[in-house]
Amino acid sequence: MKALRIYLAGPEVFLNNAREVGELKKSLCRKYGFEGVFPLDANLDLKDKAPREAGLSISEENERLIRSCEMLIANVTPFRGPSADVGTVYEMGFAHGLGKRVFAYTNIAFPFTKRTVTALKNQVSRSKDGKLRDSEGMFIEEADLTDNLMIDGCINANSKVLVIEEAPAGQLFTYLSGFEKCLIAIQKKKDEKLKTRGRP
Amino acid sequence: MKALRIYLAGPEVFLNNAREVGELKKSLCRKYGFEGVFPLDANLDLKDKAPREAGLSISEENERLIRSCEMLIANVTPFRGPSADVGTVYEMGFAHGLGKRVFAYTNIAFPFTKRTVTALKNQVSRSKDGKLRDSEGMFIEEADLTDNLMIDGCINANSKVLVIEEAPAGQLFTYLSGFEKCLIAIQKKKDEKLKTRGRP
Repeated sequence: MKALRIYLAGPEVFLNNAREVGELKKSLCRKYGFEGVFPLDANLDLKDKAPREAGLSISEENERLIRSCEMLIANVTPFRGPSADVGTVYEMGFAHGLGKRVFAYTNIAFPFTKRTVTALKNQVSRSKDGKLRDSEGMFIEEADLTDNLMIDGCINANSKVLVIEEAPAGQLFTYLSGFEKCLIAIQKKKDEKLKTRGRP
Repeated sequence: MKALRIYLAGPEVFLNNAREVGELKKSLCRKYGFEGVFPLDANLDLKDKAPREAGLSISEENERLIRSCEMLIANVTPFRGPSADVGTVYEMGFAHGLGKRVFAYTNIAFPFTKRTVTALKNQVSRSKDGKLRDSEGMFIEEADLTDNLMIDGCINANSKVLVIEEAPAGQLFTYLSGFEKCLIAIQKKKDEKLKTRGRP
């Protein structure tokens, strides 16, 4: 049987050792019988391309890779701000729209509302309508979710698997415990499906 | 003929006067013969719901509204960081995956790479491989694009309409010139399509 393909979305592509982390994720996928597909797998030849053209080629290739996969695991660990990497979030939405299974994990357990307030340097206040607002009057979500409600909502409408971990110091984008828990959840769902099919 | 429905994605939902801005956008849509659908249109009754449940209901309703539309115009003006609002970016990916037409505008012309370097308080350096990196060694895109390459790539693979404007002071999330240019582009495409159809 052909191994199910899983697209590995996340901000680890920005790391110095991105390919190494990608190989680690792919070997964990193999451990559970899946084929991991890392965004940098394409090995596009971008030498002769202008920066814009190169950037758009990478995006085109990533969309092609996502279409070629059955599933996506998103690393929604906050990146350069209180929320997940926008590239990763875009890919979650795209995969969900395509009808793929979408799973997610984060390596920060600190709540989203508190992360936002911290990023805003506590320049927040409660308005008459009871909402917490920043200095420009824009409200801050207090929905007790992992990130912007569309991100949690995607997982809730899809696989319902969003693993929250707290990475050890210095391993924010490389800690793979939550990632592995996603793989275990996928394997469990697959086994249940096979069992159901096997019923007389 | 039934008016084409356009979902109006953007961080203006966080504004104090979100509904008012939504009405302005919807009236501009009507001016060009379209029906604008604002995320807050649903008027969900969330009174008796716990925050999590309420947040997930809003997400579910937004996804339902996007499915009910033919197109989406995303306000990708940077929000609480160098990139667009993650909720908006998620909705772009979702709509693109569903095969909807996706258009975008931003009210900040200052380039993405410079926005990122500014947000990182200039704590960046160039590594041996020639890439600009932050203090954690994670690289900064220099693709001469509006935002993360997946966002520009979405528009490039879809409508090719991403309007860049510079909003007057104090109108960052309410300036609608770029939004109106998207509507004009949609109308033009629609007219071209009708003309092509009308050919003998």
